[in-house]
Amino acid sequence: MMDRKSLSNIDYSLYLVTDSGMTGRDRLVETVLHAADGGVTVVQYREKSVSTAQMIREAAEIRNLLHARGIPLIINDRVDVALAVGADGVHVGRNDMDPVTARKLMGPDAIIGYSVETMEEAQNAETLDIDYFGVSPIFTTPTKTDTGRPWGLDGLQNLRSHTGKPLVAIGGLNIHTIPDTLRAGADGVAVVSAICASGQPRESARALMDLIQTSIPNK
Amino acid sequence: MMDRKSLSNIDYSLYLVTDSGMTGRDRLVETVLHAADGGVTVVQYREKSVSTAQMIREAAEIRNLLHARGIPLIINDRVDVALAVGADGVHVGRNDMDPVTARKLMGPDAIIGYSVETMEEAQNAETLDIDYFGVSPIFTTPTKTDTGRPWGLDGLQNLRSHTGKPLVAIGGLNIHTIPDTLRAGADGVAVVSAICASGQPRESARALMDLIQTSIPNK
Repeated sequence: MMDRKSLSNIDYSLYLVTDSGMTGRDRLVETVLHAADGGVTVVQYREKSVSTAQMIREAAEIRNLLHARGIPLIINDRVDVALAVGADGVHVGRNDMDPVTARKLMGPDAIIGYSVETMEEAQNAETLDIDYFGVSPIFTTPTKTDTGRPWGLDGLQNLRSHTGKPLVAIGGLNIHTIPDTLRAGADGVAVVSAICASGQPRESARALMDLIQTSIPNK
Repeated sequence: MMDRKSLSNIDYSLYLVTDSGMTGRDRLVETVLHAADGGVTVVQYREKSVSTAQMIREAAEIRNLLHARGIPLIINDRVDVALAVGADGVHVGRNDMDPVTARKLMGPDAIIGYSVETMEEAQNAETLDIDYFGVSPIFTTPTKTDTGRPWGLDGLQNLRSHTGKPLVAIGGLNIHTIPDTLRAGADGVAVVSAICASGQPRESARALMDLIQTSIPNK
């Protein structure tokens, strides 16, 4: 884990969520490597379908390459994997460990991200020791099918006016939708297919980062 | 977690491994409750197919009913779930977190069980801080299909003569095979279908326990 000082100003602007179904199992680590070289600022390792041993092997490889570049690694759902590999944090949602227990197990220095699908969830979580909200989904998306009604840009803007947490928008984000999403108040955008399914993760990450830097207000 | 003193002489003799596919999801906790009343001495919660949130809810319910009866709860594979619910230990195998990392995360007082499928695996693990070996499988079994060649009674007897660890035999154990398995040197027998699929978990556990008490040498 990197120290808290380096995490106190986490740059959420381009947040990659991995999907081995898109990259192919054998190219997952390589895809993250290229995406890191292309400029992603945070990586979330999300994996549901392989053994714990394999998750730990992959996440440890990814941790090494990210930490060599000063990029934080967040693990989706699995606090055991995060602790085993010394990841920088976990991202949890309503079907995962609750964020209070996750904080307790991960310690005060970890990044704890929490998916909010409704304004009510966000309000209930506002006073918890959570570092950022994953705002999910912004638009409809084929990547995740178990999500609720999309927030839309209006919903995101409304949430922005009600919370002090950093907001990472996810769901249907690509070069066409990112500028408006940032203008609506997102601190960063999470992408899956825009990098994992592009076949050119370095070039895709670089293009997205260029777009983000010209779209973030006051940046 | 119960304190180490109460765990220092764990009675592995009748070790229930849960299978919600056999009990039905809605009757899992109830099955464990009845099995506990029938005399099981350890319970391993093994679940692969539900969300982390649901695992934690179920395991916490099971922890409560077991701890009220002084029976330890071990979680299969998932150190995160074990830590979240304050289980007494974890059971890991070759596809899970390695037992050294599991010990580090669970702490010195936890029970760490490790599945050994070959004599070589057992020899490599002999000096590790592992509390017992799961000897898997003793016989062929329909419950787990990802296991190696069965140990058989000869293999178990051979392992018994080479290790000082408590041995919990698993795979194909029922009223017909338990007596010989205990005579071959097992400290306990793990059952899945003999309790989870019996429809009468309390009566099944009681009958198995009676059989075990008359079969264990010097008991």
